[in-house]
Amino acid sequence: MLISGTPTRTIRRSDEENDVVKNAAAVMIIDQTRLPHEFVLRRLTTLDDAAEAISVMRVRGAPLIGATAAYGMALAAQESADEAALLVAGDLLIATRPTAVNLRWAVQRVLAQLLPLPVEQRLQAAWAEAAAICEEDVVQNRAIGQHGLSLLQAIAARKSGRLNILTHCNAGWLATVDWGTALAPIFAAQQAGLDVHVWVDETRPRNQGASLTAWELQQAGIAHHVIADNAGGHLMQHGEVDVCIVGTDRTAANGDVCNKIGTYLKALAAFDNGVPFYVAAPGPSIDFALADGGKIPIEERDAAEVACIQGRDAAGRVVSVRLTPEGSPAANPAFDVTPARLVTGLITERGVCAANSAALAALFPERN
Amino acid sequence: MLISGTPTRTIRRSDEENDVVKNAAAVMIIDQTRLPHEFVLRRLTTLDDAAEAISVMRVRGAPLIGATAAYGMALAAQESADEAALLVAGDLLIATRPTAVNLRWAVQRVLAQLLPLPVEQRLQAAWAEAAAICEEDVVQNRAIGQHGLSLLQAIAARKSGRLNILTHCNAGWLATVDWGTALAPIFAAQQAGLDVHVWVDETRPRNQGASLTAWELQQAGIAHHVIADNAGGHLMQHGEVDVCIVGTDRTAANGDVCNKIGTYLKALAAFDNGVPFYVAAPGPSIDFALADGGKIPIEERDAAEVACIQGRDAAGRVVSVRLTPEGSPAANPAFDVTPARLVTGLITERGVCAANSAALAALFPERN
Repeated sequence: MLISGTPTRTIRRSDEENDVVKNAAAVMIIDQTRLPHEFVLRRLTTLDDAAEAISVMRVRGAPLIGATAAYGMALAAQESADEAALLVAGDLLIATRPTAVNLRWAVQRVLAQLLPLPVEQRLQAAWAEAAAICEEDVVQNRAIGQHGLSLLQAIAARKSGRLNILTHCNAGWLATVDWGTALAPIFAAQQAGLDVHVWVDETRPRNQGASLTAWELQQAGIAHHVIADNAGGHLMQHGEVDVCIVGTDRTAANGDVCNKIGTYLKALAAFDNGVPFYVAAPGPSIDFALADGGKIPIEERDAAEVACIQGRDAAGRVVSVRLTPEGSPAANPAFDVTPARLVTGLITERGVCAANSAALAALFPERN
Repeated sequence: MLISGTPTRTIRRSDEENDVVKNAAAVMIIDQTRLPHEFVLRRLTTLDDAAEAISVMRVRGAPLIGATAAYGMALAAQESADEAALLVAGDLLIATRPTAVNLRWAVQRVLAQLLPLPVEQRLQAAWAEAAAICEEDVVQNRAIGQHGLSLLQAIAARKSGRLNILTHCNAGWLATVDWGTALAPIFAAQQAGLDVHVWVDETRPRNQGASLTAWELQQAGIAHHVIADNAGGHLMQHGEVDVCIVGTDRTAANGDVCNKIGTYLKALAAFDNGVPFYVAAPGPSIDFALADGGKIPIEERDAAEVACIQGRDAAGRVVSVRLTPEGSPAANPAFDVTPARLVTGLITERGVCAANSAALAALFPERN
């Protein structure tokens, strides 16, 4: 997508070919903890750099976590391509965040490519596999955008005036390699000339909506309003939301959707008000090994993410401020599970399907 | 309630009797915009001071807004007790915030006392009526606490371990003259020796939960955790919430409850998970003239409340920081309406009743 007019992806191998020859290649990411106030690229040169970037959420979003883990395996192979070292590296990366299934999927996919190869061929294969995962992500998301666009066009055809879409967290291009998942249909709608407006849940505690989704939409010139997470139900009660689209960190085989904390509350409100609730779910985020969402591990993150928040002060500095009384404890579950019964449909790269086992199995027969 | 061990009310007439004689009496409030980081009293000496305090939310919470408006009428009467001046003063106060019905109720009650009197008796009567409103508020809230305590004891008797209560916004003693509405049963439970723990919704955008409810509970030594507003549904899904109790800014005759934005989402989650959802509703907050909640005016507040937030920086200064990209618009509806069908019961000073017209009419027969 465009940043100030320049086509940009969220992750890439450094272009310095000499570094690759010297086994000193690097991976470039956008440090998303600095947005929206600063646009800063960050260079990852080691496995630990990649693990840290995932863990502290310099990169986030299930697809981008997967891509970063794949590149992390390449950085690991640059340090040592021994089987033992690669397995340790994979475990280290998988342990950084427990909920998104793409992380484990990407690591296992890279390992499955590398381990059968002679040691000296593994590094090059790791770079190639990471790049392939990224390319596939872009293709998948573009397809999700087109399938979602058809849905949006159908909803728009049934009403007059602009189409109001509510989204939670950031499932835009910053959450993927490019295009995004939940936002891909919105970018496609803009290109198709639909009059769209997006309600952006700020998405406490880390405010990915207010800091990332709003920034993406602003860069793309798409009309939007940031709202408190509390506001969506009220807007739906008053006919101000035509459709909800969110992403997913892991979707179970029965269509239960694990996504950013608070998604469940919006799904309840959508159901209560007859608003369609769609989940953009690329294949790699679907966990066919999990019968339902009840067993998805829910990450509990640092309470400081609730107690404090980062923003830009009057002098232009990005600072962290404390919101709660000193000594008041906080709790911070990072994801919740939306039962399939509340999900109108899943937008995958292969088309839109109902959120149930039969429909998912029919769309992904090779994975059952 | 106690602040650092000292019994304190949220509003009182200044104790300086000479000022009363000189028609220069003042009203002391806690400036709640400074909490939890600073405890600052503020002196209101004019009608405009009172209106400003309500408007910018130095005082907030339906009952306390009512009490402040009553004292505002006394300050107005100190400037001029003419009928025309008092009517203008009443309109000014009522216009400060549209949603809470207590504001209009308190102004009209004071006017009804004052206007039949000779002009020279009106000031003293205004002070007396404001004080009476405050005393009644305290008595009502203490009764709500006792009725709510019975509910909590019954729920606690059906389970082992601590009783987990979720609340939204601040309906504690800071929202009233003393005791609070939704928190009154919790304070009573603590005094009765129940093992209680409170999940405190931070309540964006103004964070009354994180800044006021957490502070109240900390001052009272009651176990609690602040959570993002997004987290409550997940906690209910996992059996971590035994009961929800919230306040109300206006309850319609049919039991529809208008309260802080986001209340509706928590009521949906409670209903979906079989968690009892109670609303602490003192009589003055019930609007028998409104058949249902659909006609309650919903205040739209400044978008800056969503775009920016106030907190304490590393140097101990309370500063405002911007959360959203420069130029990204925000929307800020301040209240929503929870349909009566989602409300388990209303806790009033006269007892607990179902959220429907018949039950409310039976409890308040004189108001129908």
